[in-house]
Amino acid sequence: MFRFLRVNMADKTCVFEDVPEEYAGLGGRALTSTIVAREVNPICTPLGPHNKLVFAPGLLGATNSPNANRISVGCKSPLTEGIKESNSGGQPGGHLARLGILAIIVEDIAAEGEWWQLEVGKDSARLVPSPVAGLNNFDAVEKLVGQYGKKCSYVTIGRAGEFKLTAASIAFTDRELRPQRHAGRGGVGAVMGSKGLKAIIIDPEGGQTPPIADAEAFKAAAKRFANALTTHPITSKGLAEYGSAVLVNILHEAGGLPTRNFTVGRFEGHEAVSGERLNQLTKERGGEGVVAHGCMSGCIIRCSGIFPDEKGKFKSKWPEYETLWCFGPHSNIDDLDLICTFDHMCDDYGVDTIDVGVAIGVAMAGGGIPVGDGKAVMEAMKGISEGTPLGRVIGCGTATTGRVFGVRRVPCVKGQSLPAYDPRAVKGVGVTYATTPMGADHTAGYAVTANILSCGGVVDPLKKEGQIELSRNLQIATASVDSVGLCLFTAFAILDIPDALPAIVDMLNAKFGWKLTGDDVITLGQRVLSTEVDFNRRAGITEAADHLPDFFSDEPVPPHNTTFDITPEELKTTFNWIKR
Amino acid sequence: MFRFLRVNMADKTCVFEDVPEEYAGLGGRALTSTIVAREVNPICTPLGPHNKLVFAPGLLGATNSPNANRISVGCKSPLTEGIKESNSGGQPGGHLARLGILAIIVEDIAAEGEWWQLEVGKDSARLVPSPVAGLNNFDAVEKLVGQYGKKCSYVTIGRAGEFKLTAASIAFTDRELRPQRHAGRGGVGAVMGSKGLKAIIIDPEGGQTPPIADAEAFKAAAKRFANALTTHPITSKGLAEYGSAVLVNILHEAGGLPTRNFTVGRFEGHEAVSGERLNQLTKERGGEGVVAHGCMSGCIIRCSGIFPDEKGKFKSKWPEYETLWCFGPHSNIDDLDLICTFDHMCDDYGVDTIDVGVAIGVAMAGGGIPVGDGKAVMEAMKGISEGTPLGRVIGCGTATTGRVFGVRRVPCVKGQSLPAYDPRAVKGVGVTYATTPMGADHTAGYAVTANILSCGGVVDPLKKEGQIELSRNLQIATASVDSVGLCLFTAFAILDIPDALPAIVDMLNAKFGWKLTGDDVITLGQRVLSTEVDFNRRAGITEAADHLPDFFSDEPVPPHNTTFDITPEELKTTFNWIKR
Repeated sequence: MFRFLRVNMADKTCVFEDVPEEYAGLGGRALTSTIVAREVNPICTPLGPHNKLVFAPGLLGATNSPNANRISVGCKSPLTEGIKESNSGGQPGGHLARLGILAIIVEDIAAEGEWWQLEVGKDSARLVPSPVAGLNNFDAVEKLVGQYGKKCSYVTIGRAGEFKLTAASIAFTDRELRPQRHAGRGGVGAVMGSKGLKAIIIDPEGGQTPPIADAEAFKAAAKRFANALTTHPITSKGLAEYGSAVLVNILHEAGGLPTRNFTVGRFEGHEAVSGERLNQLTKERGGEGVVAHGCMSGCIIRCSGIFPDEKGKFKSKWPEYETLWCFGPHSNIDDLDLICTFDHMCDDYGVDTIDVGVAIGVAMAGGGIPVGDGKAVMEAMKGISEGTPLGRVIGCGTATTGRVFGVRRVPCVKGQSLPAYDPRAVKGVGVTYATTPMGADHTAGYAVTANILSCGGVVDPLKKEGQIELSRNLQIATASVDSVGLCLFTAFAILDIPDALPAIVDMLNAKFGWKLTGDDVITLGQRVLSTEVDFNRRAGITEAADHLPDFFSDEPVPPHNTTFDITPEELKTTFNWIKR
Repeated sequence: MFRFLRVNMADKTCVFEDVPEEYAGLGGRALTSTIVAREVNPICTPLGPHNKLVFAPGLLGATNSPNANRISVGCKSPLTEGIKESNSGGQPGGHLARLGILAIIVEDIAAEGEWWQLEVGKDSARLVPSPVAGLNNFDAVEKLVGQYGKKCSYVTIGRAGEFKLTAASIAFTDRELRPQRHAGRGGVGAVMGSKGLKAIIIDPEGGQTPPIADAEAFKAAAKRFANALTTHPITSKGLAEYGSAVLVNILHEAGGLPTRNFTVGRFEGHEAVSGERLNQLTKERGGEGVVAHGCMSGCIIRCSGIFPDEKGKFKSKWPEYETLWCFGPHSNIDDLDLICTFDHMCDDYGVDTIDVGVAIGVAMAGGGIPVGDGKAVMEAMKGISEGTPLGRVIGCGTATTGRVFGVRRVPCVKGQSLPAYDPRAVKGVGVTYATTPMGADHTAGYAVTANILSCGGVVDPLKKEGQIELSRNLQIATASVDSVGLCLFTAFAILDIPDALPAIVDMLNAKFGWKLTGDDVITLGQRVLSTEVDFNRRAGITEAADHLPDFFSDEPVPPHNTTFDITPEELKTTFNWIKR
């Protein structure tokens, strides 16, 4: 029952094929990265016919495992020019898994100006001209729901993706059919746009829970995993109450909240843009606001929340910590309503909140937008959808914005914007930024855990000792988590509760009839990273690119006045199992 | 008497130092590239304090050799992120050589917003606040001439350099004190801008012709070299009569004139923008127009011409072939006066005509500017000086413009725009584009010679056979020519007239008391290229970057309907003496 769906945008064929031997046993990121590494010419033009766009649910998708329905998107990134895996919540991951589709592989490109949508159902798939071209995500999905109904899930790009902007995201509808879960990073939406693919409609009708080799064992293991998630204070309570925005005050306190383009590590207006404030306002305003909202079926963490406007009407999902940060402290703005509006605009136009929000603050540093001027930001943001020059620049992300405005201090690695943790004050995550094959990405090895949250151990965030090992282990574990289809937030429980990882291994063994051990999970993660690093090397991205911009080692950041002092030579030891 | 001048923009020190041993015997490109490779951290931010900007006249600068007064500019390029040598005519190269200054090395950066100018004279140098900040090149130089007089020469950046746009150039005044000879490529003007250095004033008073070990032998050799230049039809007549624009009709005829963003190799309006037309109109209009104009002392080729407007007033220098091409056929414009105006705007604002002109045509391909719309181009061009978002994008060059407008067919290698020869119809120059450490650059190995002009042999431009060897030999020879300080146009004579190269070798031997042979010239060229390739490798630019964009191998170009079929594997053999 498990198959690949190959979609060719040039000749419009949609073909189901048996899973080739070499991809057996892979899912999520392991699958997308392996397909991209094997099938995509690493020196191809990312927006050209030789790139491929791969969607893959994880190994435990559509099972009864909690929080296992994420979907990975893979391609050669037009932002970093290297391999990209960007994953998302929402319903499509589970739906594809229910249909037995392990991967959709989109190949070649349609003629310029043509827009198509892909209808996927049980044993059926076809491309039809898209009537929603030119619309942003919310209008597009509303129209598609009118046509295809509420039982389907939807994958769309907004106008940013149509414009092929390098910070364009791909939107996945959540349980309420809002297109607000995104594969945000690396410009995957631009690749979808380059192919002329506006939308994917997934009809789960006739699909089923995937076969489980040992159903009883699976059920027991899933229960143990759920138990871990409902036991750990972060996954049981913290995230549901405050969303990831719980981190605003924590990072401020730690002096690692990058403010005004990484010039200082604390923001005087932090309270106004904090998770606590988000929770309070959501409760006060009521209406359509929701505290403790899950973005996908099977989620028991429920971090995503819904933020209402002053009249109680839906305004946006709860913005992630990173979104609050880049439109907030980084851009010197402390207006929570305004930031939530920007968050919603990003979801609607289909752009990565991080690369766009950081671009805003960098444009401010370069004089392109007045510092802290919310109205000017609003105009710039609208320009993304309107296709103004400034909007397009911002929509291409931080590296392009920095270049256009002649900015010296551009916080990017491999062309991708740094997220919300100052690497001088949270050094473990700095190692991850510098070394992950994805370009600067906190989720690739979230060392904030041991650096700041005392989760999975304690490593002093201000000292260099132990950071490389911490990042290495987290990057390996994350590559596996991303392959299983689990939400990264399960990692808090995995790191602290001894039974969580064995429970996951037991679920995998019960489902597939495997006999994995914990070591095999490490091996899988290493294999994924090796594959990605090798693709990058062949694409021309070597370990010489594994470093932070100069200013992080040149300029101490208050309040701790530390620099990023882990040298490029030391960083080269991060992937110590890879021969180069 | 030979010294380096080290200028520190942070502490404002200007120090003359003896030439360190490791730089002995080097000049021009050999010197700038060696200094950059030794002294600049290859992973530094190009616009940051760790980059250096090096100016160096060639080995025969200020001698009586014909055409030997060019100046090399070296740094890490903010456009390509690799090593850069960009050279220029004009008077400053000869003036520095007369002062015995083998290199000016500009280090560190001034405080943001500060603008300085460097006064250089006999045994003196100092930084003073610049009163011409905010002005474009022509106004700046006019004001500086008022202050320092007509005997000095001037090195300036326009507003594009102040904005640190990655296609910003550095202007060098010609004999009439017009700032219209440029180190155009690679964003060297942005590096000068990043340092807060607005201008260099060079007062040659008290300088002298450098000592010559054997004056008689030098004189005889120089005469032989001059003889070669005045014998060859291209260097004696063709370039003086028509400028490099002589190539418009030739490339059209050869089917290698890239038209409308490299979709076809011939342009129906070619006659209107040809060298023949340039010559005819210049003569007809008279006034300040000049046919056969030399841009620097000692030039006997005199290709640079002055183009008058309809009233006979100065409008621009004669645009180079590449400039006519990118604002003309590439952008579907056949209005010669308009193109000359754009050329002058580039000189005034201080941007590379190639990367900006190609950006215009690429913006047209992406819908950012209506195809062939001269008025819209005029607005976009003005935006470079005004700092509008569109102007800044264009001023950052083709790669950025292609990204911002979501263009798939972006003609760049290593981030630098391809010049005016379609690599599918002039395959030798395609090899040069792909492999030179400079990013796409025709001057790095000008295979148009044997491919199109039957100069230095004949290699069929449409076949792959012999192209790699041709490009290799030319790249090696060019690295030497650029080190000697010779105008590249001397190469036509060097390639065809057997006595030309020995005459150059004899001049070098006579000046320095060396005993070089022709083989040593090859060794020098190889050494320069090895140094540059090694810097790039350490900067993270490997041979994986040595290829053309997909569409050149995917899409046959009319009229010959050939593709670029030299594979990346084959291209790797170009620098066959370098172990990697």
